[in-house]
Amino acid sequence: MIRTDSASKLKTIQIQASATRRPTLPALYIIALTITCFWFTSNFATADEGMWLFNSPPKQQLKERYNYELTDDFLDLLQKSSVRFSNGGSGSFVSPQGLVMTNHHVALSLVEKLSTTERDLVKSGYYAARQEEELKCRDIELVMLDHIVNVTSQVNAAVTSEMTFEQAQNARRSVMSRLEKEAADASGLKCEVVTLFQGGQYHLYCYKAFKDVRLVFAPEVAVGFFGGDPDNFEYPRYNLDVSFFRVYENGEPYHPDRYLKWSERGAADGELVFVSGHPGRTNRFDTPEHLLFQRDVYYPYYMNKLRRNEILLADYSETGSEFARAVSSELFRLRNSRKNRTGILAGLQSPAVFEKISSDWQQFTSTAVEKKLLDADAEGPETTIYNALVRWNEIFLIHELFENQAAFDSRLFKIARGIVRCVTESGKPNESRLREYRETELASTKEKILSPAVIDKRLELLRLTDSLNLYLELTQGAEYDDDESGEEGYGVLGGFSPGERAAQLLAGTQLDKLDVRTRHLNMSLEELEESDDLMIQFALGVDPVARDVRALYETEVAEPMRQAYAELAKTRMRLDPRRTYPDATFTLRLSYGKVAGYTSASGESIPAWTTISGAYQHARDHRLEPPYDLPERWFDNEEQVNGEVPLNLVTTNDIIGGNSGSPLVNGKGEIVGLIFDGNLESLSGNFVYTEQRARAVSVHSSGIIEIINRIYDARRVVEEIDQARN
Amino acid sequence: MIRTDSASKLKTIQIQASATRRPTLPALYIIALTITCFWFTSNFATADEGMWLFNSPPKQQLKERYNYELTDDFLDLLQKSSVRFSNGGSGSFVSPQGLVMTNHHVALSLVEKLSTTERDLVKSGYYAARQEEELKCRDIELVMLDHIVNVTSQVNAAVTSEMTFEQAQNARRSVMSRLEKEAADASGLKCEVVTLFQGGQYHLYCYKAFKDVRLVFAPEVAVGFFGGDPDNFEYPRYNLDVSFFRVYENGEPYHPDRYLKWSERGAADGELVFVSGHPGRTNRFDTPEHLLFQRDVYYPYYMNKLRRNEILLADYSETGSEFARAVSSELFRLRNSRKNRTGILAGLQSPAVFEKISSDWQQFTSTAVEKKLLDADAEGPETTIYNALVRWNEIFLIHELFENQAAFDSRLFKIARGIVRCVTESGKPNESRLREYRETELASTKEKILSPAVIDKRLELLRLTDSLNLYLELTQGAEYDDDESGEEGYGVLGGFSPGERAAQLLAGTQLDKLDVRTRHLNMSLEELEESDDLMIQFALGVDPVARDVRALYETEVAEPMRQAYAELAKTRMRLDPRRTYPDATFTLRLSYGKVAGYTSASGESIPAWTTISGAYQHARDHRLEPPYDLPERWFDNEEQVNGEVPLNLVTTNDIIGGNSGSPLVNGKGEIVGLIFDGNLESLSGNFVYTEQRARAVSVHSSGIIEIINRIYDARRVVEEIDQARN
Repeated sequence: MIRTDSASKLKTIQIQASATRRPTLPALYIIALTITCFWFTSNFATADEGMWLFNSPPKQQLKERYNYELTDDFLDLLQKSSVRFSNGGSGSFVSPQGLVMTNHHVALSLVEKLSTTERDLVKSGYYAARQEEELKCRDIELVMLDHIVNVTSQVNAAVTSEMTFEQAQNARRSVMSRLEKEAADASGLKCEVVTLFQGGQYHLYCYKAFKDVRLVFAPEVAVGFFGGDPDNFEYPRYNLDVSFFRVYENGEPYHPDRYLKWSERGAADGELVFVSGHPGRTNRFDTPEHLLFQRDVYYPYYMNKLRRNEILLADYSETGSEFARAVSSELFRLRNSRKNRTGILAGLQSPAVFEKISSDWQQFTSTAVEKKLLDADAEGPETTIYNALVRWNEIFLIHELFENQAAFDSRLFKIARGIVRCVTESGKPNESRLREYRETELASTKEKILSPAVIDKRLELLRLTDSLNLYLELTQGAEYDDDESGEEGYGVLGGFSPGERAAQLLAGTQLDKLDVRTRHLNMSLEELEESDDLMIQFALGVDPVARDVRALYETEVAEPMRQAYAELAKTRMRLDPRRTYPDATFTLRLSYGKVAGYTSASGESIPAWTTISGAYQHARDHRLEPPYDLPERWFDNEEQVNGEVPLNLVTTNDIIGGNSGSPLVNGKGEIVGLIFDGNLESLSGNFVYTEQRARAVSVHSSGIIEIINRIYDARRVVEEIDQARN
Repeated sequence: MIRTDSASKLKTIQIQASATRRPTLPALYIIALTITCFWFTSNFATADEGMWLFNSPPKQQLKERYNYELTDDFLDLLQKSSVRFSNGGSGSFVSPQGLVMTNHHVALSLVEKLSTTERDLVKSGYYAARQEEELKCRDIELVMLDHIVNVTSQVNAAVTSEMTFEQAQNARRSVMSRLEKEAADASGLKCEVVTLFQGGQYHLYCYKAFKDVRLVFAPEVAVGFFGGDPDNFEYPRYNLDVSFFRVYENGEPYHPDRYLKWSERGAADGELVFVSGHPGRTNRFDTPEHLLFQRDVYYPYYMNKLRRNEILLADYSETGSEFARAVSSELFRLRNSRKNRTGILAGLQSPAVFEKISSDWQQFTSTAVEKKLLDADAEGPETTIYNALVRWNEIFLIHELFENQAAFDSRLFKIARGIVRCVTESGKPNESRLREYRETELASTKEKILSPAVIDKRLELLRLTDSLNLYLELTQGAEYDDDESGEEGYGVLGGFSPGERAAQLLAGTQLDKLDVRTRHLNMSLEELEESDDLMIQFALGVDPVARDVRALYETEVAEPMRQAYAELAKTRMRLDPRRTYPDATFTLRLSYGKVAGYTSASGESIPAWTTISGAYQHARDHRLEPPYDLPERWFDNEEQVNGEVPLNLVTTNDIIGGNSGSPLVNGKGEIVGLIFDGNLESLSGNFVYTEQRARAVSVHSSGIIEIINRIYDARRVVEEIDQARN
């Protein structure tokens, strides 16, 4: 069985990675040391760079670069009109009746769940011609950011310099829990403390949440994801990646305080435009050594996992169209993610890009030393980060496999772990619990456990088998070790092959039934330990290893890095506070930029816009073969639609995954487009913003109206948008 | 640039694998030690096990088990009727006019090369209604085994006990080259020395070779690979995996000495049947430690590579149907290979299967010790193998990346390396050359270099980028290392990212042009070193590392293992020579077995046959969706065809990949089927034969005739087979 004294074992399994030797940087890095400079710009936001906080907006930059006055009312309009989708995307209110616009690819997983074998809305698209036909979605929450409070001093006050990393971590977690709970109780809002600047600041974000979200309009996936994977991250593009939902409250359409109106014509070439949305994650301020860890350890591991999952789901899809439909959005996300990460990794692998990163870093630290903000001789934050990386490297695989469930990729396992931890954590004081089981999170955690979504045991078997295989592969048979000391490995497989073990666990669990889940959730720990459900027993068995490695990770990796990065962030802010923005955290940010074409690497001039007639041409160039098979109705209505109307456009806005579905607005706050992608050149934006060729890609506001009006005859939506404008 | 003093570097990069610690086997292995037995059977061929040599056939077993007299004439008939396809499959002459039958999936890559955008024979299938319409194939050679000579004593005579492993290896290579060349010169045949019993025996195989091979009939891929990947390795099956070619000599149909006639009705349930074909590779006699190396090092590496390639080609396929067609056979092979290896690995991962392997091994060695054929105290062959595995583990990645070209997956690189080595090796005495550049091989090596097959540079870019990425990933940035000693890694990327480097190399080479290749092939080494072709320069640059690691592998891994396995094989033969067969070597073998259904793991009774009407039902069960979309003509002719005729059948024959296209014959040597697959349970046959559920899957002889007659109206083929029978 599972041994609980896992800490010693953790140390024995590791991958040999560059971080175990102190990574040496390219020669270029050394050269950078010799460059003298009076002032550096690269580590500060320049050009159209920046994912700005709404409570620390780039007013000065906009004034300087665009002679634009960023007003508080404008900020309030964008903030209150913006929503975040819990399945990982952005959106905005576009009418006083709670109409919400987002991307088709954000809507996809919701549309999928509304589909059946008889009615495949992914394929056919959907339009509710009457309000009663609006379809209520499952497993979704939309949130609108009501207000932000800077709680940095309260959080920091809880931590004293005498504390160990572990104590500091607990103290901070505890105060964050309390602040969230107090704010939630007082306001009735959903509150979370967001860690910004890698721990340099803590802001309390309070959201109004919506759970009754109904589908109003979605086009066919063939045009929502026109050009498919081959066109993904490419430009020029011709994509109608748009969907509309309506938010309800108490069974009636919700009337938002603020919403965005449609622009009459869209934006002109070179015009200033804004994006208000939720960029997911960037690593703009990671140390070069941290980036090497990502290049050599994290990304290779992660992409291997993506590839395995992609192949698994592609195989499953081939067994029938109903199965293909059931996993299409997940497969889309996987492929999107893989192509995206290939682009990110390509940046990290490029010595030229790394040279810029290294020299920026070198300039930042040497300037900080010069200005006596960093001590050149002492073991500074950079060394702390390096040491944390070494530790991370040692526990990386076990952390991924056990705590992040890479070894147990199964919804039923996830449910079992959720139940085990709900029962275990509920018996502890709120501050001592694992984050996701604190009072503020517990309801939504339980809701996930009790999701009525149907679980396909055949797919479960494929996933669990493959992930147990990954476990066996990455631990290289340690499972089966029987050394003289009587150690038996982790015992995860219990003496069976991955396939046999997976089949056994799935045959022995009833957690696919909601009442069985509820019953287990209400058990005491003692009762749970007596349960005859095999998956529960399995989750109980692997939990000690998972908890141990999570504790190690949090106290010896995450916390030291947080403190060191916080120190670096403070240093950076002291150098010039107004030009500093934090890494993306899937919270609301403002980006500014302009409409601008570019010249490709091979010298081709790429205009800012494409047109509707370009979409027809693109389909015909590919003989209408999938994924270029525009739906029939496009050809039926080709005469009616105005082909000259712009369809997609590119801008210099600084965005990243999570911004999907964000509104693109002009200086008056009017919608001129809908963000849905970045080009390949923008992907290295994960760690460095560049303006030469990196572009955000949007659906054009005029194209949306022209097409849903003339091709889809979706009059309710068009009229609602029209009325909202007047 | 590339450093030539690579040996020291080789040692620094390795993966941490189980072989670095002496692998400990499951507890079960220990238990096996305590089992006493007077005689063991498992390590000898029992039941229907065995891939038998034609010059050492299982006469005694057939007499004992089936009361069947295996005659020399029968063996001669099967041997002379069987052919091997150079693209990796088997086939047989089925008429006196040189008609050859094989699988559609063996024909696929040839059919693909005969296709154009306008005429997609993969999709539409092909039937030459007249002889003039038979289509000449590119890049293919068929060989028929004319005779075998046992040359073990000559080869062994060249090796003395004083020789180092390296000297022994060279001596053996040298005498093998000489024997091959002498035999080829004397007979005009194509001759190769085959290493059997892992070096226990050496046999000289002399082949008659055919290069003029023309396509006569191939069905649509939709029915040739009916059920696609989901049905692959499954049973029941409904597959018309058959194609016909004709061999020509001097522009006229070839008249083979012997050919197989069609059986009137096929085989009955339980009837004895034979397979004559070319099983590719098995590891039936590997030590348990060797199998652990495969489980923990080789397979995880190899499957990662398969998955990467599969995803790359799937992406490429999505960019247009002409691209999909161009790589469909390669993608088929990759998917087939992945599913196959998943099955093999599942066996290695099963403690139960491993227990059997371990206890068999234990019984073999303890019996051998008891009979004084092995010395219990001395460091025996098992330890030699273990030490070689440790060494292999150290150089594994560099050997794969540099010598096996995993880092440079590009046809143009392969051509460049071929040219570089042709030029370099031609200047050496025949015996000292690398195997593939010896006189007997040089012509076919040059032919491959000068293949007129069109090279798509876009696909080349994808492949080379991805494989340079794999290189960077597996060497974990060592490329960019610049330590104090001034070492610069291998310099493969020359200071660029994988994508940049690949683009640069491809832009700088003209080797896609045949005349450029020819010009370079005729250069001296000095001229080659002055060539301005970047790919040639690159191949020159990486060659020293590749050669060094190949030499290390051959002398410190392959040769010690060969000698140790040879010793073990001799021991095994001394215990009972008539019951021993060698591992598969993609040379002609005979397997016997019987027609037999089975009971599945879940208790279902699976009958031996399926029928033609079952194919229609199977398609309808899947709503005719791909890959279950039977071609139109099947429905047009559904009334004409007799649905009761058997379509596929299973037998207990011991086969493996490479047997695809082998004839299945009855005791009279008449064709009763055509091998095309094994079921999932048969895949662990790579290292252990089991009879309970493992089955070979064939197309039924009667089904082939009924369908190509009634559905395809391929009268020429039907009549030719019919006339041959009478």
